[in-house]
Amino acid sequence: MTLIRPFQETDWPTVWSILHATFQSGDTYANSPHSTEAEAHQAWVELPAATFVACSPDGRVVGSYILKPNQPGLGGHVCNAGYVVAADAQGQGIAAAMCEHSQAQALSMGFLAMQFNLVVSTNERAVRLWKRLGFTVVGTLPRAFRHQRLGFVDALVMFKQLAG
Amino acid sequence: MTLIRPFQETDWPTVWSILHATFQSGDTYANSPHSTEAEAHQAWVELPAATFVACSPDGRVVGSYILKPNQPGLGGHVCNAGYVVAADAQGQGIAAAMCEHSQAQALSMGFLAMQFNLVVSTNERAVRLWKRLGFTVVGTLPRAFRHQRLGFVDALVMFKQLAG
Repeated sequence: MTLIRPFQETDWPTVWSILHATFQSGDTYANSPHSTEAEAHQAWVELPAATFVACSPDGRVVGSYILKPNQPGLGGHVCNAGYVVAADAQGQGIAAAMCEHSQAQALSMGFLAMQFNLVVSTNERAVRLWKRLGFTVVGTLPRAFRHQRLGFVDALVMFKQLAG
Repeated sequence: MTLIRPFQETDWPTVWSILHATFQSGDTYANSPHSTEAEAHQAWVELPAATFVACSPDGRVVGSYILKPNQPGLGGHVCNAGYVVAADAQGQGIAAAMCEHSQAQALSMGFLAMQFNLVVSTNERAVRLWKRLGFTVVGTLPRAFRHQRLGFVDALVMFKQLAG
């Protein structure tokens, strides 16, 4: 059972360790593999409209997600979300639980739709999961992601209407 | 003949008047129609990697464009650009001249591709122009723009490779 609750600053060391490992792998997030802790804190805590964490039954933080408007003003009804899961907690449905939670949370914040701007096409597990959760591939950005092992690969834009 | 040169702070009053009118119309840019001058300055001058202006033969500033990385790190080889033209200078090829200039400028800054994230689908003149200049529609975002007259309308993602 995954508990999802708002982020607190005391969660940061664990969240940063997850982000650091995720960014370093260079295969799913655009954030530089050399991102500093301060840059990551700004991107994950200061800039987003909301940051949440997912906890395992023993209370350990094993994942985190952010929500923010994807565009200002007249595009601000569409939100953007990002999710990370600790390497040793993959495959337990935590990303799915966070994505479901983030959709409800986005609706409660007044967002009408959710957009992912840069889903790495080679991240097949993520693409499959977002599709299962109701997202559609609405665009393909040719060679828009510089994968650390594979070089330039396509990235997908995925989208889901949350409300009329 | 349109001269295009780097923005200087003395250009700001004119650039702001163009931006203000553009944002107020609420039919092409996501920026709120109620954007303040400080918000516009941040978005157009402080955040971008480069800001340029287009001048008419008599030296008057009649347009402006910005360039910035569209994503951090591993997506940072794709740039994003935005263009505005004064209402009384439309139809003179100024947007086309700025777009051509911005592509050369982007290449000189090391970018490999250019992406427009939110081309309002009802802005047919812009869509036609970007296509003529080599951009392709790579995605359609359903109802992603809240048009001030037409309500929710689709927005397009357009993309052009600038270099191998």
